[in-house]
Amino acid sequence: MATDANRLFEDCRGITSAVCLLSGGVDSTTLLHGLRAAGVRDLHALSFIYGQRHVRELDMARYQAGLARVSRHDVIDISFLGALTAGRTALAADGPPVPDLSELSESQRRQPPTYVPHRNLLFLAMASAAAEGAGLTEVFYGAQAQDDYGYWDCTREFVVRLNATLGLNRDRPVTIHAPFVGLAKAEVVKIGLALGVDYQHTWTCYRGGKTACGTCPSCMERAAAFRGAGVSDPLAAAR
Amino acid sequence: MATDANRLFEDCRGITSAVCLLSGGVDSTTLLHGLRAAGVRDLHALSFIYGQRHVRELDMARYQAGLARVSRHDVIDISFLGALTAGRTALAADGPPVPDLSELSESQRRQPPTYVPHRNLLFLAMASAAAEGAGLTEVFYGAQAQDDYGYWDCTREFVVRLNATLGLNRDRPVTIHAPFVGLAKAEVVKIGLALGVDYQHTWTCYRGGKTACGTCPSCMERAAAFRGAGVSDPLAAAR
Repeated sequence: MATDANRLFEDCRGITSAVCLLSGGVDSTTLLHGLRAAGVRDLHALSFIYGQRHVRELDMARYQAGLARVSRHDVIDISFLGALTAGRTALAADGPPVPDLSELSESQRRQPPTYVPHRNLLFLAMASAAAEGAGLTEVFYGAQAQDDYGYWDCTREFVVRLNATLGLNRDRPVTIHAPFVGLAKAEVVKIGLALGVDYQHTWTCYRGGKTACGTCPSCMERAAAFRGAGVSDPLAAAR
Repeated sequence: MATDANRLFEDCRGITSAVCLLSGGVDSTTLLHGLRAAGVRDLHALSFIYGQRHVRELDMARYQAGLARVSRHDVIDISFLGALTAGRTALAADGPPVPDLSELSESQRRQPPTYVPHRNLLFLAMASAAAEGAGLTEVFYGAQAQDDYGYWDCTREFVVRLNATLGLNRDRPVTIHAPFVGLAKAEVVKIGLALGVDYQHTWTCYRGGKTACGTCPSCMERAAAFRGAGVSDPLAAAR
């Protein structure tokens, strides 16, 4: 396995049970299989229906959870988030259109139209509830450094401050681990390739087409990550 | 209005629109009417179905939201929280029984069986999403000092750390206000009495009976608060 994976292993030493957020994209899928390879035997995967444009990523999440032989996979319906944040995010079915990466202005890159208000905090609060409910203390989150540019809730500082908040729990506090938070997406892909992750069964595109569009911010970043890892994206071949 | 209400007003200066968590209990009901009296014209109340033993408190929340003439009241179903935390909380319909306050050991008082894993973080994450979705930045939370004994997520430090986390938002960060966090429940009741709050239409009991049981931790604290405020609880008269 690639040397960068050591970072993941350091965070996993001695952990045998954990909750893992799983979107069905490149980062969380790599994380799930990385945890498995690192000896986390008892994996509880969590995915969400939050009013996104398509459920293709959930199909991928289910497929990958099966491959990783998780103990439990909950797909939780929080579509009300779509109603609460209606019109504010391009990821919602009734939101503004998903822009091409080339259309984003400098100021939009700080917090792009594809940002979903407080979605990741909500995901992590639910993952923490699931962990505490099951008597577990470890939650894994696939945020990586490249999302840092536009998403405050994908940064290392966000995880540090949220952990400071969760640490107030007087019983056994839950800890959020984000082992990829310092890695570029290409590094995540390299780790996954070394693990033999089946990237054909992952989904990244923000738009809801039958094949990935290739031009939305997420597709562009995915393509660049595979190029950076020196391979071609198996999904790009299907376009 | 009582002098202690100044604390509330300080936090509200210049705020005309806000999201307010509303359970239908004494604290959040007082907060809602306090915000109204303090000049917050546009109130968005949020209540939750989270698998609790009864929905009486939601009926009260709806009644009070109507009285306060809120602009919007969402009752959001997150019953999946019950499934995720099954067996871990006495507030869930299928959880362990609600204990009498006198039955709680010292260690249980630090985090009692009536604690719901990460529920309040989840509520506040959703309130923050609702606020950001509506273009608002202020969220009000009725935590008061007396819950501090057993609930890490009702403490001032919890609110401070959560605000430090939310403050990373690169657009317009949401701020959680908990104006009662330094007040005993009796002080909250005094503020509410000065505001003319109709406490007969609030619900506090953890158990699901037709009338309040009078012996669960929540009922005991409510009774003490009304005694402390020098009046009798209108609900106690109905028992």
